[in-house]
Amino acid sequence: MKNNSNTMVIFGGTGDLTHRKLIPALYQLDINGFLPEGLNVVSVGRKHKTSEEYRNELRESVKKYSSRSFTEELFNDLAQRVEYFTLDFDTQKDYDSLSEFLNKREKEGKPENRLFYLAVSPDYFGKIVDCMEESGITGGSGWRRLVIEKPFGKDLESATALNSSISRVFPEKSIYRIDHYVAKEMIQNIMMLRFQNSIFESIWNRSHIDNVQITVLEKEGVGTRGGYYDHTGALRDMVQNHLLQLLAITAMEPPKSLDPDDVRDEKVRVFQALKDCTAECTDGNVLFGQYDGYRNEDKVPEDSRTETLVAARVQIDNDRWRGVPFYLLTGKALKNKTAQVTIEFRKMASLASDLKQEPNILEIKIQPDEGITLHLSVKKPGVIDEMVQAEMDYCQSCLYLFNSPDSYEKLILDAMTGDSTRFTRWDELELTWSFIDSILRHAKDNVIPKGYEIGSDGPVELDSFIKSGSGKWWYRNRTSQYEYNL
Amino acid sequence: MKNNSNTMVIFGGTGDLTHRKLIPALYQLDINGFLPEGLNVVSVGRKHKTSEEYRNELRESVKKYSSRSFTEELFNDLAQRVEYFTLDFDTQKDYDSLSEFLNKREKEGKPENRLFYLAVSPDYFGKIVDCMEESGITGGSGWRRLVIEKPFGKDLESATALNSSISRVFPEKSIYRIDHYVAKEMIQNIMMLRFQNSIFESIWNRSHIDNVQITVLEKEGVGTRGGYYDHTGALRDMVQNHLLQLLAITAMEPPKSLDPDDVRDEKVRVFQALKDCTAECTDGNVLFGQYDGYRNEDKVPEDSRTETLVAARVQIDNDRWRGVPFYLLTGKALKNKTAQVTIEFRKMASLASDLKQEPNILEIKIQPDEGITLHLSVKKPGVIDEMVQAEMDYCQSCLYLFNSPDSYEKLILDAMTGDSTRFTRWDELELTWSFIDSILRHAKDNVIPKGYEIGSDGPVELDSFIKSGSGKWWYRNRTSQYEYNL
Repeated sequence: MKNNSNTMVIFGGTGDLTHRKLIPALYQLDINGFLPEGLNVVSVGRKHKTSEEYRNELRESVKKYSSRSFTEELFNDLAQRVEYFTLDFDTQKDYDSLSEFLNKREKEGKPENRLFYLAVSPDYFGKIVDCMEESGITGGSGWRRLVIEKPFGKDLESATALNSSISRVFPEKSIYRIDHYVAKEMIQNIMMLRFQNSIFESIWNRSHIDNVQITVLEKEGVGTRGGYYDHTGALRDMVQNHLLQLLAITAMEPPKSLDPDDVRDEKVRVFQALKDCTAECTDGNVLFGQYDGYRNEDKVPEDSRTETLVAARVQIDNDRWRGVPFYLLTGKALKNKTAQVTIEFRKMASLASDLKQEPNILEIKIQPDEGITLHLSVKKPGVIDEMVQAEMDYCQSCLYLFNSPDSYEKLILDAMTGDSTRFTRWDELELTWSFIDSILRHAKDNVIPKGYEIGSDGPVELDSFIKSGSGKWWYRNRTSQYEYNL
Repeated sequence: MKNNSNTMVIFGGTGDLTHRKLIPALYQLDINGFLPEGLNVVSVGRKHKTSEEYRNELRESVKKYSSRSFTEELFNDLAQRVEYFTLDFDTQKDYDSLSEFLNKREKEGKPENRLFYLAVSPDYFGKIVDCMEESGITGGSGWRRLVIEKPFGKDLESATALNSSISRVFPEKSIYRIDHYVAKEMIQNIMMLRFQNSIFESIWNRSHIDNVQITVLEKEGVGTRGGYYDHTGALRDMVQNHLLQLLAITAMEPPKSLDPDDVRDEKVRVFQALKDCTAECTDGNVLFGQYDGYRNEDKVPEDSRTETLVAARVQIDNDRWRGVPFYLLTGKALKNKTAQVTIEFRKMASLASDLKQEPNILEIKIQPDEGITLHLSVKKPGVIDEMVQAEMDYCQSCLYLFNSPDSYEKLILDAMTGDSTRFTRWDELELTWSFIDSILRHAKDNVIPKGYEIGSDGPVELDSFIKSGSGKWWYRNRTSQYEYNL
């Protein structure tokens, strides 16, 4: 029996992430009885306030941000587990006090395991970890785990530096790097869909698949984040983490087991097989876009060449996928907010020349709907033989409306129970940053972003970007028929 | 350009089939503009009546039996094409008069092609064909086609005799043997589903399929047909034609083309590969049932051993199917009226021992709903990994409600346009009767029908009849969720 009981120490306890995500997630876990026995929280922040004041603030946040209904009784069960502790991130003696505080509580019976959650800017990661070590907070008995939020650097060099600053103190297996996107239900479902359904696994390869399209599209522009975003761009902000994670889960070989390292080993093998982007990047394999008006956004330079959209044709050089292009597309200020993985199967030779045939398409819908749609060719009812496209649907969001857990619920529970499957291992980061760097090195100066209208499907150059199969971006055919079911 | 224009000569013009099916089908074809130009009908019957009287009777039948709404104008377009002719089936000179009548009309401009439709008891087939030939009706210019209804005999011997009596006059390619069941939309769709969708054809074999279940269940008992039925039984009445046709379409190799003889050649190859039933028939591979109370039905002997239900485990001895059992089940007086083909795929090794795994199931629903359901294993939304069964649906009857054509519309049009794909060729009959004879020879005296309650799922012995895969009869899991969508 694993000992999951722990004290969760949140750095950044007064910040947005804690109020909007972490505490509501704990509340929801508590409602469902998933919190480990004895779980308690020490929220650490710069501001001076009492635990009582802090709990009153949390009450408002849970009311506002929790997906579950609020009841005072349930909230109180959580609140009595939470204490507030004032600490200045740069002051060593504050950490000494925190150490004493934690030790004292544990002597009084609180759990000895410590889950450190850094809900602060990455700039502080190294500092906080160093100071904690210095004060002995990271030592002692019980397990010690560190949860950190993205961004994990802005290129391989900075990611390596960031990693060095924490891995000096925490061994890799105790570091939980969150990519909350990966925890989304339908992304988790891709592995099950592939490896628990015989009909899919046997056709999941280059003999049967023509191309794969991974699309994560946003409706909003950069908003007030222009200053940060202009130094990042879509490639670093979205492709390095979300899209490449989706690619790995879609393309990986069956893992030996569902143990975290078996799963991550297979994801790493996909990243290792990614063909590095050399001169090809400028040769129609990478397309950058920038929405009209981006340069007028707050804190964005007038001559910015930062990409707010990127499309890439990626090859995986292994036996299963050789020759099958993976098309990645992500961007801001587009027509719809949608995320999906689309598999376009190869067409077979038609039985008769006058029977129109479309390829079979499998759509794994991540958001806003969650579900699976399979597009088939069927005979149109009638006295003459005529084909028509039919959709077979599994609408998960219709069935489990309001019951789908938030990504943070799952991830916090995973960290507490020591399941690192859904967290990013360092070698994954190393390989994905190396891949992104190779694109940036060769493309950044040569690939001029194409303009596109806000609320459009992206630059017109996208229309001819897909060179295989039907040549279609399937997300454009997406219909959200589910909304009528709600 | 094919010449489809013709005179349809219906023998049995005052009978039930003509009033309930043939004339309403012609009316519906007419509404949709599918009737060949110049099409006209000569309805032949024993009773004396004028064409005017006959047309008035047809008006009532169309009102009553057509699936489309009645309008006087549309009916009149059909009615003015129809004439009635009085003829006694046994009187040669009546045929001479019919010959003169047809010749005279053609001289006045009616089409020369003749489609003879024998909507009469098979006992008359030979007589009518002989007399027609004698009077020269089957000769002359223009094409001559013969449409006949089932039953085509009651065993190989009687079927051969019946066939001899008509094939002396009509070449095989001009004989259209109707099995209206085969014309049902979803049965026609099985071929399209298999051969126009790459994802299915590649897994349609013994490597991926564990077993196939073909079930055609009826709610009604024998009603007033006990006298006929007791000499027939479920095996002859349903398996020889409907179920074996379904089996052939499900199991056939891809035909060279959609030409009628290419398609039927492949069906014949399936029948040739059926393993003949020898001693095995009594050894758990065939189960007969008889519903309680059957022996009290009108005209049924008190000691009848006629089967009102039959289950059979059939093997197809070819490379695609060797080792895959095809389970056939048909019966009367059961809980539900339903017809479907169910494919149970092999399970794959589960990724983790604690992840429950069900096989993938593809249901092709023929009636009462028309559609396709694919059963998948997916991750149940939640913070812990748990599998759940999901259904993906294509509900054809929801989409095309009221627009699905009647089988007779399709078949009459096929016969007029010379498309014999959906009609049974003599070698199909020869092989299926030979197969049925082999079962009857070995099983009839040894296999005692098991009793079952009216309105049940059949004899309890059925529960353990399926010996492979999950051991389940999947039709019992069938849910008609569609009815709520209407």
